[in-house]
Amino acid sequence: MPEISADDRGSVSGLFQLLRDGAPRTRAELAKQTGLARSTIATRVDMLMRMGLIVPVGDGVSTGGRPPSQFALNPAARLVVAADLGASHATVALSDLTGAVLVERAEPVAIAQGPDVVLSWLAESARALLAEIGRAESDVAAVGIGLPGPVEFSTGRPFNPPIMPGWDRFDVPGWMREHFDVPVLVDNDVNISALGERAVAWHDVDHLMFVKVATGIGSGIISDGHLQRGSRGSAGDIGHVRVARGGDAPCTCGNTGCLEALASGTAIARSLREAGLDAQSGSDVVDLVKRGDLTAIQAVRQAGRDIGEVLSASVSLLNPSVIAIGGSMARVGEHLIAGVREVVYTRSMPLATERLAVVQSTAGAEAAVIGAGILAIEHALSPRVVSTSLAPTA
Amino acid sequence: MPEISADDRGSVSGLFQLLRDGAPRTRAELAKQTGLARSTIATRVDMLMRMGLIVPVGDGVSTGGRPPSQFALNPAARLVVAADLGASHATVALSDLTGAVLVERAEPVAIAQGPDVVLSWLAESARALLAEIGRAESDVAAVGIGLPGPVEFSTGRPFNPPIMPGWDRFDVPGWMREHFDVPVLVDNDVNISALGERAVAWHDVDHLMFVKVATGIGSGIISDGHLQRGSRGSAGDIGHVRVARGGDAPCTCGNTGCLEALASGTAIARSLREAGLDAQSGSDVVDLVKRGDLTAIQAVRQAGRDIGEVLSASVSLLNPSVIAIGGSMARVGEHLIAGVREVVYTRSMPLATERLAVVQSTAGAEAAVIGAGILAIEHALSPRVVSTSLAPTA
Repeated sequence: MPEISADDRGSVSGLFQLLRDGAPRTRAELAKQTGLARSTIATRVDMLMRMGLIVPVGDGVSTGGRPPSQFALNPAARLVVAADLGASHATVALSDLTGAVLVERAEPVAIAQGPDVVLSWLAESARALLAEIGRAESDVAAVGIGLPGPVEFSTGRPFNPPIMPGWDRFDVPGWMREHFDVPVLVDNDVNISALGERAVAWHDVDHLMFVKVATGIGSGIISDGHLQRGSRGSAGDIGHVRVARGGDAPCTCGNTGCLEALASGTAIARSLREAGLDAQSGSDVVDLVKRGDLTAIQAVRQAGRDIGEVLSASVSLLNPSVIAIGGSMARVGEHLIAGVREVVYTRSMPLATERLAVVQSTAGAEAAVIGAGILAIEHALSPRVVSTSLAPTA
Repeated sequence: MPEISADDRGSVSGLFQLLRDGAPRTRAELAKQTGLARSTIATRVDMLMRMGLIVPVGDGVSTGGRPPSQFALNPAARLVVAADLGASHATVALSDLTGAVLVERAEPVAIAQGPDVVLSWLAESARALLAEIGRAESDVAAVGIGLPGPVEFSTGRPFNPPIMPGWDRFDVPGWMREHFDVPVLVDNDVNISALGERAVAWHDVDHLMFVKVATGIGSGIISDGHLQRGSRGSAGDIGHVRVARGGDAPCTCGNTGCLEALASGTAIARSLREAGLDAQSGSDVVDLVKRGDLTAIQAVRQAGRDIGEVLSASVSLLNPSVIAIGGSMARVGEHLIAGVREVVYTRSMPLATERLAVVQSTAGAEAAVIGAGILAIEHALSPRVVSTSLAPTA
C-alpha cells in the first residue's frame, strides 16, 4: 500500500470523517467538499479502499461520458468495543463504524469490586462477543469505556471517584491495552451518554445537555457540537452544586447540601423512608410513583425542582437548545421533568428559554453504551490512528 | 491576481490564520504545518502577498543551497474598528491585524440614548480616528462591537436588553454597514472581554471564564479555546442566576433574588446606603473600600461570596483553569476576589479546583475594546471574506 506522509495524515482522516455519515459520494463530490485536488482525492480514496474502510457502492449520477464511481463507508470494516460500567451493572457491546450496536452483554457487576475484577469481566465479555459473531480480535479498532465517576480524560484515570474504591488514579487504558492493543478511551458515563443521546435523537443539535438522574446526578455537555470536558475532564459535574433546599444534608463527596444529596434516587428513597414508606432504592421510588403513591409523586416532583434549580443556572451559563433527562429515575416519567421545567422556565431569561426543549432521554438505558462506541470511533479514527493502527497488517 | 476557486478558500484562510501569530515561516515550514503540497503553498503565499496580508521578512535558516524565504503577517495591511459600548461610557479604537490598539477614543456616552445616537457617535469617532492616523476608510476590514446586554450573535441584534431602551432587536450590523461596508460583528461586552483578557494575559489557556462585576454581572466563557455563545448567544449570563441570599430582592430582569440584584456595584451601594453610608454607585463603594471603611469592605467581601456561589456552580459545569474577575468593581482589589475564592474553593470538587486560578483581570478596562478587535479580526479573515472583501480593489 502507498506510504502516508506525515503531512497527509490529517487529510486522509478528514476524508474518512466526511464519509462517516454513510452517504455515498463520487470522487468529484469529495473534491468539492474537501477542497482537495482531484488527483489527491484519487490517491486517498485508493488508500482508504485498500484499508477496507470504504467500498465502492455502484455508480453515481452520470453527467455525460463515463459514469462516476461512488464510495461509502464500510461500517463492517472494523469494530469497537464499547462498555458502560455503572455502580452495580455493566454493559459491554461491539459496535460497527457507524456506532450501531451489533451485539451486547449486560450483567450485574459491582464497580466496587475494583478495577482488576471489573476490567477482566469487560475483556472476557468482549472476547466472548467477538467469538459469538465470528470476528477476530484484530478487527477491534478501539475500546471506549464509561465509568461512574470523575475521569481525567487525557490520561483515562478516575480521579477521587466517590463510589469506586480501588479505582482512584488507576491506569485504565494501560490495563486494557494489555488485552486489546488499540487506543482505549475512558470518560465518565454521563459524558458518553450525551454523545449517545445526540447520536440517537438529536443529530442536528449542537447545544445539548444530557442529565443523568440515578444513584447519583451528573450531566454531559455538548456545545457547538463538541463534548465539553473542561481543563481536567470534570465539566458537567452538577451533582455537587449546592441547592437552596440543601441545608446540611451530607453528601458522599464530603460536602453538604449538594444536589445529589437531595434529588438522587437514593436521596428520594431516604426521604420516603423518613415519611414511613418502604423505599430502599431509587427503583422502589419508581415503583411507588407508578403505583400512584402521592407522597412519592410529590417527592419526585420536588427532586425535579431541585434539579431544575441547578439546570436553570446551567441554562444561563450554557444556553443549550435541548436538555435530555435520562438515568434510572427518568423512568418515573413526566413527574420529574415537570418539576425541572417548572423552575427552569420560571428562573431562566427569555432569550435562553425561547427555543429550549426539556425532554426525557430517547436513548434511555442504551445512551452510555452507544456513546462509548461513538467515543471510540471518533478517537480511533483520528489522524495518527488511521495511518497506523487501522492499516491492515497484511 | 489569480482567481480563488471555491474549494481553495478555506485553505487560503487557514494559511492566513496560521500566520496570524506573527512568527515568520518558510514555505517548507508552512507545508509541514498545513499538510499542503509545496506547489499549493507557493500559489497561496503568492496570493496573500499580492493582497498585502503577508510580507517577506528576510531569509530563514539555510539547509544548504538557496536560502529559503520567510513570510510573516503584515499587521498594518488592514485595520479593524473595535468598539466597547457600555451603559454610560463608550470606547472606540482602531486595531491592527494582530489586535494591537493603534489609537482609541473614550467618551461618556449613555447607551440609553438609543442606537441612532450611539452608533452615529461610533461611526463618526471611527472616521475621526482614521483621519488622525492618516488611513483610508477602505483600509477597514471589519467592525467589532460590544454591547452591555444580551445579543443574538448570529444576527447581531440585542435581545430584550434590560438597560438599553430602543435597542431591542435593532439591526446593529445593518445600520453600521451603511457607514462601513464591511463585516460587522456584534456581541455582548462580556464575551468580547473574555477574548480580550485571553489575548492579553492567557494566550495558552483554553478554558477561561471572564467575569465582569460592574453595574451588572456577566461572564464570557472560553472552552477548548473557543468562545461559547450557546444556541441563541446568551451563554455566560450568570447575573440572573438565583443565589441563596437572594430572597425577594427585585432585579432589573423582572425576577427576584438574582446574583446581580445582590452583588453588583449598584446593589452593594444600595446596601451601604441602607447601612447609613453615602454610596450612590459602585464607584462610591470602591472609594469607601479604598479609604478602609469596614462596612464597605464587609459588603464587598459578601458580594464576592455571592458571586463565588454562582462561580462554584460554573466551575462544576465548565471546569475552567482560569477565572479572571474584571469590571469596575474589580478595582476594590483582593476583598472581592477573596470572597469568591472562599466559596469556590470550599464548594467545588477537588479535580476541578486542583489547578484553578481565580485572579484579577489583567486587561482591566481595556479587555472589551481589545476583544472587540479580536472578534472583528477573527471573523473578518474568515474564508469568504479573505477571498472577497479583503482582496485589493486594484
